Amino acid sequence: MRRKVCVVVTARPSYSRIRSALAAIQAHPDLDLQLVVAASALLDRYGSAIHQIEQDGFAIAARVQMVLEGGDLTSMAKTTGLGLLELSSVFGHLRPDVVVTIADRYETIATAIAAAYLNLPLAHVQGGEITGSIDEKVRHAVTKLADLHFVATRRAAERVIAMGESPAAVHVTGCPSIDLAVETLRDPRLDFDPYERYGGVGGRMDLASGYLVVMQHPVTTEHELARAHVSETLHAVRDSGMPTLWFWPNPDAGSDGTSGGIRRFRELERPENIHFFKNMAPADFLRLIYNSRCLIGNSSVGIRECSYLGVPVVNIGSRQLGRERGRNVMDSDYARADIRRAVDAHLGNGRYPSDPMYGDGSAGERIARLLAEAPLTVEKRLAY
Amino acid sequence: MRRKVCVVVTARPSYSRIRSALAAIQAHPDLDLQLVVAASALLDRYGSAIHQIEQDGFAIAARVQMVLEGGDLTSMAKTTGLGLLELSSVFGHLRPDVVVTIADRYETIATAIAAAYLNLPLAHVQGGEITGSIDEKVRHAVTKLADLHFVATRRAAERVIAMGESPAAVHVTGCPSIDLAVETLRDPRLDFDPYERYGGVGGRMDLASGYLVVMQHPVTTEHELARAHVSETLHAVRDSGMPTLWFWPNPDAGSDGTSGGIRRFRELERPENIHFFKNMAPADFLRLIYNSRCLIGNSSVGIRECSYLGVPVVNIGSRQLGRERGRNVMDSDYARADIRRAVDAHLGNGRYPSDPMYGDGSAGERIARLLAEAPLTVEKRLAY
Amino acid sequence: MRRKVCVVVTARPSYSRIRSALAAIQAHPDLDLQLVVAASALLDRYGSAIHQIEQDGFAIAARVQMVLEGGDLTSMAKTTGLGLLELSSVFGHLRPDVVVTIADRYETIATAIAAAYLNLPLAHVQGGEITGSIDEKVRHAVTKLADLHFVATRRAAERVIAMGESPAAVHVTGCPSIDLAVETLRDPRLDFDPYERYGGVGGRMDLASGYLVVMQHPVTTEHELARAHVSETLHAVRDSGMPTLWFWPNPDAGSDGTSGGIRRFRELERPENIHFFKNMAPADFLRLIYNSRCLIGNSSVGIRECSYLGVPVVNIGSRQLGRERGRNVMDSDYARADIRRAVDAHLGNGRYPSDPMYGDGSAGERIARLLAEAPLTVEKRLAY
Amino acid sequence: MRRKVCVVVTARPSYSRIRSALAAIQAHPDLDLQLVVAASALLDRYGSAIHQIEQDGFAIAARVQMVLEGGDLTSMAKTTGLGLLELSSVFGHLRPDVVVTIADRYETIATAIAAAYLNLPLAHVQGGEITGSIDEKVRHAVTKLADLHFVATRRAAERVIAMGESPAAVHVTGCPSIDLAVETLRDPRLDFDPYERYGGVGGRMDLASGYLVVMQHPVTTEHELARAHVSETLHAVRDSGMPTLWFWPNPDAGSDGTSGGIRRFRELERPENIHFFKNMAPADFLRLIYNSRCLIGNSSVGIRECSYLGVPVVNIGSRQLGRERGRNVMDSDYARADIRRAVDAHLGNGRYPSDPMYGDGSAGERIARLLAEAPLTVEKRLAY
Repeated sequence: MRRKVCVVVTARPSYSRIRSALAAIQAHPDLDLQLVVAASALLDRYGSAIHQIEQDGFAIAARVQMVLEGGDLTSMAKTTGLGLLELSSVFGHLRPDVVVTIADRYETIATAIAAAYLNLPLAHVQGGEITGSIDEKVRHAVTKLADLHFVATRRAAERVIAMGESPAAVHVTGCPSIDLAVETLRDPRLDFDPYERYGGVGGRMDLASGYLVVMQHPVTTEHELARAHVSETLHAVRDSGMPTLWFWPNPDAGSDGTSGGIRRFRELERPENIHFFKNMAPADFLRLIYNSRCLIGNSSVGIRECSYLGVPVVNIGSRQLGRERGRNVMDSDYARADIRRAVDAHLGNGRYPSDPMYGDGSAGERIARLLAEAPLTVEKRLAY
Repeated sequence: MRRKVCVVVTARPSYSRIRSALAAIQAHPDLDLQLVVAASALLDRYGSAIHQIEQDGFAIAARVQMVLEGGDLTSMAKTTGLGLLELSSVFGHLRPDVVVTIADRYETIATAIAAAYLNLPLAHVQGGEITGSIDEKVRHAVTKLADLHFVATRRAAERVIAMGESPAAVHVTGCPSIDLAVETLRDPRLDFDPYERYGGVGGRMDLASGYLVVMQHPVTTEHELARAHVSETLHAVRDSGMPTLWFWPNPDAGSDGTSGGIRRFRELERPENIHFFKNMAPADFLRLIYNSRCLIGNSSVGIRECSYLGVPVVNIGSRQLGRERGRNVMDSDYARADIRRAVDAHLGNGRYPSDPMYGDGSAGERIARLLAEAPLTVEKRLAY
Repeated sequence: MRRKVCVVVTARPSYSRIRSALAAIQAHPDLDLQLVVAASALLDRYGSAIHQIEQDGFAIAARVQMVLEGGDLTSMAKTTGLGLLELSSVFGHLRPDVVVTIADRYETIATAIAAAYLNLPLAHVQGGEITGSIDEKVRHAVTKLADLHFVATRRAAERVIAMGESPAAVHVTGCPSIDLAVETLRDPRLDFDPYERYGGVGGRMDLASGYLVVMQHPVTTEHELARAHVSETLHAVRDSGMPTLWFWPNPDAGSDGTSGGIRRFRELERPENIHFFKNMAPADFLRLIYNSRCLIGNSSVGIRECSYLGVPVVNIGSRQLGRERGRNVMDSDYARADIRRAVDAHLGNGRYPSDPMYGDGSAGERIARLLAEAPLTVEKRLAY
Repeated sequence: MRRKVCVVVTARPSYSRIRSALAAIQAHPDLDLQLVVAASALLDRYGSAIHQIEQDGFAIAARVQMVLEGGDLTSMAKTTGLGLLELSSVFGHLRPDVVVTIADRYETIATAIAAAYLNLPLAHVQGGEITGSIDEKVRHAVTKLADLHFVATRRAAERVIAMGESPAAVHVTGCPSIDLAVETLRDPRLDFDPYERYGGVGGRMDLASGYLVVMQHPVTTEHELARAHVSETLHAVRDSGMPTLWFWPNPDAGSDGTSGGIRRFRELERPENIHFFKNMAPADFLRLIYNSRCLIGNSSVGIRECSYLGVPVVNIGSRQLGRERGRNVMDSDYARADIRRAVDAHLGNGRYPSDPMYGDGSAGERIARLLAEAPLTVEKRLAY
C-alpha cells in the first residue's frame, strides 16, 4: 500500500525550496506524490511557479486560486480563509495519507488547519527557526498543528522539542533548498545569458566584471514603509554604479508598496545599471547568485543557500532577524549609506568558505524516506 | 484613550465561561467592550447563546454566521475558513485595540488568525491546558498566535512559558467560569422548577430525592463512534432508574451522530427517567449541577466548575484526558457497565470538598484589569 | 469527441426530477456524464440524496459541501456564495462542455453564475414557470444566464422566448420527473411495506383502507410563520383520523421552523395516526403517492407528477402560486378547516384522469439528445 | 420614517456614473444614504475610487474587499462568490430599506443576490441595454432579481417591460452619468494641467493643438486576445503622432493581458506621444474628453457621455455592440489600420451636436425622488 503524499506549494520560493524533496517523493517506490499548486504560485504577477513546475515534469493534482488583491493585511487574512475553504475540498477529494506544508508564509496555515481538521497527518518542513514579523507566529502555530517535523538545523530541532513536540517526531533533514545548491556547485559556471533567457526590463549591462543581485521583500508589519525601504536600496545600488540584477518581490502584504516604489524609481530616475527580472529557474538562479559579487536584500536565500555557496550577503532590516547565519552575512539597516558600507566591506572580502549549517545536500532524500517510513498519526499531546 | 476590547464568543459554553470577564470589561472605566457573537452561539439548534447574551444586557457589535451543516470534519474546516473571511471584515470595521479569544474550540483559530494577520494584539483565555482530540492542537496553535495569555492554573502558565512565550505575557488569572461558581455557592439552593422554566422533552421526574445530570459531547476524531458512545451512556442512566437531566451536545463534528443517537434511543426505548434540555442560564445550570448527585459525561464543566463545587463527576472517555482534575472526578470508559460502576461509587461518597485549583472567583476582574493595563504589542519571538 | 455534461444536483427533489435524464445522458454514446452532488443533497438531515444516487449507480465526480446552518435568509445567501466559490473550482477541474442546472432552488444560481463566468454553456431545466417566493426571481435570473432551455410545457416555452431568449435555444422536452411517473404507472401496486423499508418515526397504521400523504415546505419569504403553518396542517390531518404518511421538509430558509413545529407537535400531541419519513427512493415514493387518497402540502410533486398520476392534491398556500395545474389540484389556505374541507371534497371524488401537461415520459431522452446535438455557445443577446 | 438607501459601488466607472444620484440621495430629506464601497473601487491598482469618494465627502458605511488576483475567468467567479458572502453580512448589519445596484459588471450580481435573498427591495440602474460579452447575461439576470428599474432610455424601458417586469416598476430616469456631463458643459474649458494634477507616466506633450484620449478595456470572453488587441491600438495612436492621453483598464478578467500589453509596448517601443494615467476626478475627466479631438477605445463613456458632449468617438470591437449610439460614434475593428481610418474620418469632421438620448441632466434627482416615493416590495411575478 503506497502512501499518498500531498504537498501544497503556495509560492515560487517555496517551490524552489521543496523541489528536491518533490523529486525524491516522486521517485520513491512506496510514495505517490499529489502536488497542489496554490496562491501566488499560480500567478504570473509573481513569477508564476506553475510554469516552472510543469516544465520540471511534476503532475499537478489540483490548483487553488485564493489570493485576494489589495496587498494589505485584510487581504492576507481573507486569502488564508479562502485557502482553508478550498483546501478542505481538495484534501477531501484527494484523500492523502499525509500532507506536507512548507515553512511559514501566512497562507500556509490554511494548509495546516485543513489537514489537521480533516484528521490528516501533517508534516512541516522548516519549523523551529526564528525570524521577525508575522512569519514567526505562523511558523510556530503550524508546528503546534503538525505531527511530523522536518527541520533544517540541530538548533531548530531543539526549539521544536522545547515547544513540547515529541522528540520522535522531530527530524533534522537539512533544508532541501541546499540540495540544489550542492548540485549547482558541481558546475557553477554562469553558462547562459540571463537577459536573453529571462527577458525582464532595464539596462543590459556587461556582467563579466562582476555584478550585484537584489531581492527585497516587504516586511509585513511595516507595510506602509515598504516604498521608503525599497527606495533606499534602489538608490544604494544605482549610486554604486555596479551592474545590478534585481528580482521583483513576493505577494506578501505590502508588495504593492515595494513594486510601486520600484516602478516610480524607474520612471523618475531611469537607472541605467539595474535590470529587473520576474523570476528564474532555480538552478539558473543559484548560478547567477553564485557568480555575483554580493547578494543584497532580505531574502532567506541569503541566509540559507548563500551560507553553503559562500556568497557575500548584505541582509537588510528585520525580516531575517533571529535566523542562524554564517560568516558570509553582514546585517544592514535600511538606509542607503548603511547598505553601501556593507556592500563595500564585502567587495573587499570576496567569497566565503562553504558552510553546511543548513544542510548537506540530502534533505530531499531524507524527507521522502521519512514520509515513507515514519509512523503516521494525528494524535499528539504536549510533552510536558 | 479607552482601549477597545473585542471579545469573540462562538459557542454557548464559551459564553458561560467568559461572562464574568465580559461584565468586568464593561464595567471598567478604561475599556470599551466590543462583543462579537459567532458560530453556534447564534444557532437555536445548539441552545442559542445569543438570547442569553441579550438578556444579560450586553450590546452586540457584530454577528457572524459561519457554521456549515454536515456535522463532519469537512464542515468544521470550512466553518473555520468562513469565519476567517468574516472576522477579517468585522475586525477591519471595529478596529479594536485588543482581541480576546476563548479556549480551544476548532473555530476559535479563525479569531486568532484574523487578529494576528491584522496586527491586532491577541489575548487568549485558557491556554496551556492538555486534553484529547483536535482541541489540543488548536489550543497550542492559538497560544503561538497570541500576545497575552490569561491562564487558569499555575501549571498551565508553566506550560505556556515552556512553549516559548515570554513570562511577562503570561498571567494566572484563574478561569472566569469559576467566578460564577463562587457566586452561586453563596446561595446554592435549587430555587426553580427546571421543567417549567426550560421546557425540554421527556419524563418530568420528581427531583427531590436526587438526580443525575449528563452532558456528553462527541469526540471529534472518533466521530463515527459518536452514536455508539452516547448509546452506552443512555443505557447506563436509563438502567440506573434515577431521574436524569440530560443536555444536548455542542455542534462539534459528530454532533449529528450524538443527537441522532439520542433521538433513536428516545424513539425506540422511550426512557421514562430522562428529561432533555437544550440549555439553561449559566447560574441556573450551576445550581442544578450543584444539587445533583453526580455529573456524567465529558464536559469540561465536570473538570472545572465541579472541582470548585465539589460535585461528584464521572468523566467518560478521552475528551478531558490530560486536564488537571480534583478528587471529585472519576474516569470511566464508554461502556455502560463502567459508567454504572463509577456512578455507584460516587453515590456512596457524596459531595467532595471545594478545590480552588481552577480559580478563586476573581478571574473576570483580573482579566479586565490586565486588558486595561498590560502593554499591548504584536511583536514576539520564541524565547529560546 | 464526446461532450462532457456536468449536471449539478443540489437537493433530493431535484435528483428525483432529473434522474431519467441522468440515465439517458449516461447511456448516450456521445456524452460523458459528470455528476456533481452538492448542498442538501449531501446531508443526512434532509434525507440525503447521495445514498440514493450511489445506489442508482451514478459515479460522482465531485461533492460540494456548502449549506450554512441557520435556516434563515442570511444563511441562504451565504450558502449560495460558498457554492459559487466551490463550483468555480469544480468546473475549473472538470472542464465540462456544458453544465446543466435544475429548476429554481436558491442555491442553483451558484451553478448558473459559475458556469456563465467560466464561459461554459449552461442548460437550464424547467425554466419559464411561475410560482411564488424567491424561486420566481431565481428561476428567471437563471434563464437569463442560460444558453439552452429545456422547459416542461408549451406555455413555459412561450414565456422563456418572451423574456428575450432565442426560440432556437428553447426546447419543450417535458419535465423528466414525469418519466418516472409514466414508468411507475406500468405497475403501480404498493408492493412494499413503507415502515419496514424506510423506518421513520410515529404510528404504524394499517394502510389498506386508504391513507393521506403530506409534504409541506416552508415558504421562504414568510419563514417566521413556518411553525404556525405546519401546525395547522398537523392538526388537520391528526383530526381527520386517517392514516397519514408525512415527509420532512427541505432545507430552505425556515425549515428549522417547520421541523421544529413538527417536533413540538409530536412531543405535545403524540399523534397516533401520523408516521414521519425522511425520504424514499423515487419509484417507491411515486407508488406510495399513487395509492394514496390525497396528497397534501405545497410540494411541486402535487402539481407535476400528480397531474399525470391523477392523484387528488390539496395544495396549501402560495408556494405553487402561478404554476399551471391540472383538475386534480385543489387550492387551500393554511387554516386547518380549509385543508379539511379540500381533503373531504377530494375523498368524495376519487382519482382523476391522467393529464400529460407536464410531459409524456420521454423528457430524459430528449434532454440527452439535445445535449449531444444542440449547438453549444455562450454568446447570446436579448432578442429585441 | 426615512428610508435607508444602500448603494453598492464596485468600480471607479460605476462611481462616476452614480455620483449625481448619491448626492441627490444624500440631500433628500426622506432618505439616508448607506454607501458601500467594494471590489476594485477599493484598489489602488485600478485607480482607487475610494479616495475620490472620500474627497467628495460621502460617508462610507462599509468596505468590502473581494477581488481575487488572477485576472482570469475563475477569479471573476470567485470574486463574485466572496462578494456574496460579505455583502450578506453587510446588508444584515445595515438593514437598508432598499438596495441600489449599478449597471452590469460581473461582481454586481453579488449585490443583487444578497439583496434578493435577504428580502430587501432591489433597485437596478441601467438595465435594459444591450452589449456584448458576459455583461449582457449579468445585466438581464440582475433585472430579473430587481424590483425597481431606473433605465437610461425609452428603448431600455421597453426591453425591461418586454422581459416581464411590471411597467409600474420601470422608470426612465436617464443615465446619471449625463448629469455631470450637463454640468460640465456649463464651463467646459480645460482649466488644469493633467500632467501636473494626475502625474502618470510617459511623454508630456503640448496639448494645445489637439490630442486623443484612449480607454480600452479587455473583452471578457476573448481575454487571451487582450494583449493583441491593445497592441493594435497602441500602434495606431503611436503612428498617428498625435499627443495621446491613455487610461489604464478596469479589473475585468484579462486586464492583466491588457496592462501587460501596455507595459511591454512601453518597454520595447518607448512611445514619445503617449502619456498614461491611472484615473482622474470625473469632472476633470469629462473636461479632458470634451476638449479632445477624438475618444478611442471601447468604454461606455464613448457611447453615453460623449453622445451628450458631442465628442467624436472611435468605438473598437464588440464590447459596446448593441448599445444605442449617437451620430458621434464610429465603429472600428481591432486592426490598427481600421482604427486610423476612423480617427482620420472624425478629425475631418470635428465636434458633433449634443444628443440627449441617454439623459437630460436630472437622472440623479429623479432616482432619489423615486427611491423616496416608489412603493417598495420584494414580491413580483412574470407579467405574462
